[in-house]
Amino acid sequence: MKKDVVAILGAGRIARVHVEMLVRYQRNVRIKYIVDPYLSEESEQWALSMGIEQTGKDAEIVFSDREVDSVFICSPTPTHCAYIIRACEAGKHIYCEKPLDSSIRKIHEAIEAIQSSGVKFLMGFMRRFDVNQQKLQRTVAGGGIGTPQIIRLCSRDPALPPYPYIESSGGIFFDSMIHDFDLARFYAGSEVEEIYAGGNALVDPKVGELGDIDMAFAVLKFKSGAVGLIDLSRQSNCGYDQRTEVHGSKGTVHMANVPETTVVVRNEEGVHQDKPVYFFLERYADAFAQAHRVFLDMIHNDTEAPVTAYDGLQAVRIAKAARISWQENRPVKLEEVS
Amino acid sequence: MKKDVVAILGAGRIARVHVEMLVRYQRNVRIKYIVDPYLSEESEQWALSMGIEQTGKDAEIVFSDREVDSVFICSPTPTHCAYIIRACEAGKHIYCEKPLDSSIRKIHEAIEAIQSSGVKFLMGFMRRFDVNQQKLQRTVAGGGIGTPQIIRLCSRDPALPPYPYIESSGGIFFDSMIHDFDLARFYAGSEVEEIYAGGNALVDPKVGELGDIDMAFAVLKFKSGAVGLIDLSRQSNCGYDQRTEVHGSKGTVHMANVPETTVVVRNEEGVHQDKPVYFFLERYADAFAQAHRVFLDMIHNDTEAPVTAYDGLQAVRIAKAARISWQENRPVKLEEVS
Amino acid sequence: MKKDVVAILGAGRIARVHVEMLVRYQRNVRIKYIVDPYLSEESEQWALSMGIEQTGKDAEIVFSDREVDSVFICSPTPTHCAYIIRACEAGKHIYCEKPLDSSIRKIHEAIEAIQSSGVKFLMGFMRRFDVNQQKLQRTVAGGGIGTPQIIRLCSRDPALPPYPYIESSGGIFFDSMIHDFDLARFYAGSEVEEIYAGGNALVDPKVGELGDIDMAFAVLKFKSGAVGLIDLSRQSNCGYDQRTEVHGSKGTVHMANVPETTVVVRNEEGVHQDKPVYFFLERYADAFAQAHRVFLDMIHNDTEAPVTAYDGLQAVRIAKAARISWQENRPVKLEEVS
Amino acid sequence: MKKDVVAILGAGRIARVHVEMLVRYQRNVRIKYIVDPYLSEESEQWALSMGIEQTGKDAEIVFSDREVDSVFICSPTPTHCAYIIRACEAGKHIYCEKPLDSSIRKIHEAIEAIQSSGVKFLMGFMRRFDVNQQKLQRTVAGGGIGTPQIIRLCSRDPALPPYPYIESSGGIFFDSMIHDFDLARFYAGSEVEEIYAGGNALVDPKVGELGDIDMAFAVLKFKSGAVGLIDLSRQSNCGYDQRTEVHGSKGTVHMANVPETTVVVRNEEGVHQDKPVYFFLERYADAFAQAHRVFLDMIHNDTEAPVTAYDGLQAVRIAKAARISWQENRPVKLEEVS
Repeated sequence: MKKDVVAILGAGRIARVHVEMLVRYQRNVRIKYIVDPYLSEESEQWALSMGIEQTGKDAEIVFSDREVDSVFICSPTPTHCAYIIRACEAGKHIYCEKPLDSSIRKIHEAIEAIQSSGVKFLMGFMRRFDVNQQKLQRTVAGGGIGTPQIIRLCSRDPALPPYPYIESSGGIFFDSMIHDFDLARFYAGSEVEEIYAGGNALVDPKVGELGDIDMAFAVLKFKSGAVGLIDLSRQSNCGYDQRTEVHGSKGTVHMANVPETTVVVRNEEGVHQDKPVYFFLERYADAFAQAHRVFLDMIHNDTEAPVTAYDGLQAVRIAKAARISWQENRPVKLEEVS
Repeated sequence: MKKDVVAILGAGRIARVHVEMLVRYQRNVRIKYIVDPYLSEESEQWALSMGIEQTGKDAEIVFSDREVDSVFICSPTPTHCAYIIRACEAGKHIYCEKPLDSSIRKIHEAIEAIQSSGVKFLMGFMRRFDVNQQKLQRTVAGGGIGTPQIIRLCSRDPALPPYPYIESSGGIFFDSMIHDFDLARFYAGSEVEEIYAGGNALVDPKVGELGDIDMAFAVLKFKSGAVGLIDLSRQSNCGYDQRTEVHGSKGTVHMANVPETTVVVRNEEGVHQDKPVYFFLERYADAFAQAHRVFLDMIHNDTEAPVTAYDGLQAVRIAKAARISWQENRPVKLEEVS
Repeated sequence: MKKDVVAILGAGRIARVHVEMLVRYQRNVRIKYIVDPYLSEESEQWALSMGIEQTGKDAEIVFSDREVDSVFICSPTPTHCAYIIRACEAGKHIYCEKPLDSSIRKIHEAIEAIQSSGVKFLMGFMRRFDVNQQKLQRTVAGGGIGTPQIIRLCSRDPALPPYPYIESSGGIFFDSMIHDFDLARFYAGSEVEEIYAGGNALVDPKVGELGDIDMAFAVLKFKSGAVGLIDLSRQSNCGYDQRTEVHGSKGTVHMANVPETTVVVRNEEGVHQDKPVYFFLERYADAFAQAHRVFLDMIHNDTEAPVTAYDGLQAVRIAKAARISWQENRPVKLEEVS
Repeated sequence: MKKDVVAILGAGRIARVHVEMLVRYQRNVRIKYIVDPYLSEESEQWALSMGIEQTGKDAEIVFSDREVDSVFICSPTPTHCAYIIRACEAGKHIYCEKPLDSSIRKIHEAIEAIQSSGVKFLMGFMRRFDVNQQKLQRTVAGGGIGTPQIIRLCSRDPALPPYPYIESSGGIFFDSMIHDFDLARFYAGSEVEEIYAGGNALVDPKVGELGDIDMAFAVLKFKSGAVGLIDLSRQSNCGYDQRTEVHGSKGTVHMANVPETTVVVRNEEGVHQDKPVYFFLERYADAFAQAHRVFLDMIHNDTEAPVTAYDGLQAVRIAKAARISWQENRPVKLEEVS
């Protein structure tokens, strides 16, 4: 059986996650290239140790290699759409990290390129592929709680990231809450009509000086009448606190955290359990692997993408509306963002 | 030891709850009167069976009886402030059901009467006296989670009340979410500066025709920078779903539902537990009893009220602001409501 | 409606529990007497404060008073059967505390007296009336887990009782595990054929010097083929740890502890909940009240006792067999004890 | 870095588990051989697909190949000790599946061979390497619950295995409860002095006709005075129900099941969660991987085995004593089995 030949664009943290999971679980995948204009020596060593065949600084070696089947776009956000368009020209299938881009116009161009080229495109909202989120969504979509009415999401990272990360993140709504926007749409089965969002720099005032916030909320009003309530913090002090609840006309479903172990100690002070697992790598490693399986299956069996570029577009539009809402302290219609 | 002599004003559902709990737990209380201008024969029978000494239609028999120590105001909301002022004149201590009143002006008059008369006044936000809410608040106030940053409340009644109840309820923000407004202040340890609220008639469109909604949300912005997120539904389908969570700078505390039993069944279909207890009577019976103990202790030992008329005022102001926000779809400053 | 007139025999800890719960919940009961040959002045004061009409040292005032409908036997174990027989002669209904007696012969005589007299008799295994145990038993009896195969009980008191209590307790199998023997029969729906039991004085070696153990186990082999496994400790360090699990041919059901509150704190150290409620009074207050309701209903409506003197006999026989098994370290057939 | 060269002896179910986990997680391992006297064509195909270099029917190709560093003994139990002794002669390190052997004499010979040869030996009680069991044991060994007094284990497989499996299994105490015997020693930190065991064929009477039982219990008396209570069933109907609890002088620790997902549905019927994961492959996949890491570390860094051949011996002795106890219905001293 011919192996799938893939190339990785970008060599940062998220690129490494994809490589790790491809090497571990996709025995039929050959990672031929990893390309990054700022590729460090350390990254080259690491790539070698992972069995990646070639490294480079110019992505054109990937696009001009007819052997390459697909690319994983893990580079900085502003490069995403250009890479997508180039991959479409070169006939390479695309797995693209979030957010799709910060420019709505460029996203529309990318979507057009995808549609006219016919390449497969999977938007990398990996949370959708988590076994728990999948079960939650199947329950909702299968009518298990009736019509969704209230969607509550809580996303609290374990601890504040470094200041440079925050500065280049695009802001909390683009960098972090975008996952929750996508999940809220996923669960609501309806499009967002209006959003009201806000927050503060409560964890660390320095975050405010950098022009961002570290605690945020959003109210999503869906066309169906359902309401989404999201809260998010950069610091849980208690691992990765990420829970979802959907309340519907017939019942409620929620997804609890994943604890480090199932061990419980009872003593004079009380009953004590382990914290949730530390962060997204611990929580979503298997979700990345599952996203890879789905992507390869799209290619082999010409199946539809469960998360499309349109989903990527909508999440970006909601994030933009959220930022406007926060800045102007007013509800913002999604149609304002186009 | 001399018994405490009390009178009950109003003979509706909530009046009966108070009588039941007083009879069961306060052995030192004599309920001398129950008074209601629309007292039914059935209510008289019930009052007799509970050992209440006299029934009547005119509250003046209470206020003019020097033996009466205190009154429990359980009558319709528009009568609350007039009864409070009359009780202050007559020197009777006051336990008053929520909401305090719908008129801010009348509330101010009532507060003045309380202050100048020196009678004891306890605002009947009984949830504050629940053993679970108390533990949660002690944890927060004791610094157990650091500074509060996010307060999430979920209040879902088991099933839609009858239409007439909804019509005379004053609307979901006054009738129901007012409890959550009070709890949010209780936990935040800060005053609300601005509110954004809304909702829909999703459970039953008839509720919308009656001018109300049956699913509501509210975002509370506190002066401290903390944010409160409340969601509420008139229909949980799953008992009384009422949970609170406070996330702070050092950790998070939450209060789960109270299940009917601790029994769990595991079989081929999964793992099954009982629903939460059905409604507020099941959930808060002991909280009423505890509120009574606190009220009697205020009288006997001249202790301070843990929930004051000012708390009642603030909750009403927030409810009014919430209604404006819902009607005008904009964030509303609390100072607009005065 | 004529009130039920009851008398309490014995004025110790368990007598007070019954009086408290009767006063609180059974508005139609008059406690006319409390009788104890060693009645202290302090107990008389307490009886007065509870509204008990008369106190005495000789139980004959009870038996000779035609107004008395029923007696609650709360006196020391060796007096139980004599009181039962006397109550039968006097035509008084009987609620009897556990254990029924330590003498099998005397128990048989008491059973005969009950049967020939026709008085109502309820064996006070109050755990059977707990809302959680009831739900568990209904689940099992209703076929919810198929045929019971494994019954696991865990009974751990919060802390070692005083030495004098241990000395006069009759030993851990009679004083404490007898409840578990009764529950195991209740859940198994089958009679015990053989028992293997043992234990050690691990909490405090002084308990061993007093001839008893403070940690015990028992294996019950039921006629149905099911097996019961009981473990018990005098010291949980963590409130009243009392759980039951029944595994059957179609599934498993268990009953968890009752926590003090539903509050959960999550912080850097982990996730922390409250301990189970402290001891049997906190855990089983409502079960006593429910047992009283059932007893009064037996009298008023001539209903059958759900826990009979025969149940009391069987529990005593199992306890005796357990003691022999512990002393001789061998499985003991129940038929050896007669 | 030179790769570790390993050979797999046996090609049945458990051999495949080891190969799967080695291929997935141990990138530095070369599986040079898989050897089985009854190697099927299907197994050869599978071995090829897993990248195993050679297959064979005679283990001597392994022992005579100087390149092979270690062997994984996954063959039928009666062959274990002979393979161990041969591996010692050939200087191969050994990972051996449980049970070590059914003959105490042969085990002693194997232990002697291991000791005199100096090869590394890891007894494959993989449960000890599970993240939850490890946390539990660290808690106990670290004094978190004081001195262990009661150890409760519950092991319930999802469904009855095929009859041929049962016939060749060596009986429930050797095939299945041996894991619990090992864990009980692991947690107790003390040796077993006496055992009382039994059970019935309740799931399926045919199991009884095959000379085995499908529901079993054991009471382990440890030298420390602690008591172990084990129950086991071949059929849980609810996934892999495997829980452990250790109660000590200062508190209690338990390890709960691992659910399929963290999703919870609440509706009119109650609150519903997923079952525990199905069986040992789902529950213990990571434990196998961790055991492999430990084994390779023993070889590379000359570290001590955390589970030794002596542990394997003791578990077999307890299993033998359990069988005698079941057959003769009496407590059996471990010293009887030698």
